Amino acid sequence: MPNSKIGGHYSQAYDEELQQAVVRLLQMAALAQQQLDDAMAAFIGADTELAQQVKDFDRKVNNFEVDISEHCLDILARRQPAASDLRLVLSVLKAINDVERIGDLAKRIAKALLKEEQGNRPQQSQLDEIAVMGQKVRLMLQRALAAFEQIDAENALAVLREDKAIDDDYARIMQHNLSMMMNDARQIAISLQISNVAKALERVGDHARNICEHTIFLSKGRNVAHLSDAELQQVVDKKRD
Amino acid sequence: MPNSKIGGHYSQAYDEELQQAVVRLLQMAALAQQQLDDAMAAFIGADTELAQQVKDFDRKVNNFEVDISEHCLDILARRQPAASDLRLVLSVLKAINDVERIGDLAKRIAKALLKEEQGNRPQQSQLDEIAVMGQKVRLMLQRALAAFEQIDAENALAVLREDKAIDDDYARIMQHNLSMMMNDARQIAISLQISNVAKALERVGDHARNICEHTIFLSKGRNVAHLSDAELQQVVDKKRD
Repeated sequence: MPNSKIGGHYSQAYDEELQQAVVRLLQMAALAQQQLDDAMAAFIGADTELAQQVKDFDRKVNNFEVDISEHCLDILARRQPAASDLRLVLSVLKAINDVERIGDLAKRIAKALLKEEQGNRPQQSQLDEIAVMGQKVRLMLQRALAAFEQIDAENALAVLREDKAIDDDYARIMQHNLSMMMNDARQIAISLQISNVAKALERVGDHARNICEHTIFLSKGRNVAHLSDAELQQVVDKKRD
Repeated sequence: MPNSKIGGHYSQAYDEELQQAVVRLLQMAALAQQQLDDAMAAFIGADTELAQQVKDFDRKVNNFEVDISEHCLDILARRQPAASDLRLVLSVLKAINDVERIGDLAKRIAKALLKEEQGNRPQQSQLDEIAVMGQKVRLMLQRALAAFEQIDAENALAVLREDKAIDDDYARIMQHNLSMMMNDARQIAISLQISNVAKALERVGDHARNICEHTIFLSKGRNVAHLSDAELQQVVDKKRD
């Protein structure tokens, strides 16, 4: 793993253990992203076979979570890491929690398709809207993970700010859905499925945002959950003591 | 704090630090439970003033999370805990994450009332249904926290199993809502608010379930996320090595 910020201990085995935690987190994240891509492709393309596959593969993401969590606990127990090593292990523990939830949300999107009544599909405009939101969320997630891998607090903050646009997309889709339901009762069931998918994507955005917060914590040593935008900027601008 | 399972170190200061982590978690949880009670009372009784208060007090729960998280990180860095002490600190770190989300969900319930159009209230049968679900969730959460405080894996497993009944309540309310919307378009907006509240309660149940999993981890030393019911029973029945 190319990140030179991790390691540098007398014990090479210890360095490798720390790097393995990050490598496996990124593998887990790659799998969760694939699940999300497949879930969105299945939903948009009405591909029930692919949706079923997403549902069945959720266990793989879960298995990763258990493995990585045990690896991290083992490091904590045997190596008793301090300072930036401790932050790294804790950040990985937090991040796997978010990635596991993203896997769950991909499954929820797949299930939204599987629950649709045969032949009763959303309108093209609804599918287009949700596809655009899905791409935005997907890109945010990818950037959040890249910033984590690079332990880059500046980039993490930039990505974190993208969550606002996703929340706006969500609000717009919900508004659109509401008026469709009001106008035509036959649209209710299908609009609720669209709402479910939009909500799942909005939550993926929240988890991508959490991953950015973990990156800032890892880089700057400050827990930044619940800080205002201005406070976040201050933390990121500050040089480490 | 009365729990005799925590502590017993040569350093009394260290014992106190560990107990403080749990004491503060329970204080945080008491606040989140109060928020949830107030949110449900506000929603059922259409008390917008109380709902506004829940919305404003969310920050208090968040502040607790940041404080306790720093306290735990400080213990990890200075005391380098091992074995059951390490599990205790990690379990508190995980549990505050769940409690913080419960505070968020209480806020979401309060906001559902604040978004209602003036005078457009759910029907009494809808309110009754959601009130019953709310009480069930509330009791489950209280029992989950008691099992955590007592580090009681058997009770934690019993409480964890209650989540199924809550998921069933949720499915029933959603089904009921759907037919109300289908029958009368004027019910759509208000039924969506009921759905939001039901979803929030269902998520509180999930977080109570997570807290039970942390208790089993704390007591038995096994990460039990994603295990089947039979596997959970095995872990709980097993004596610690």
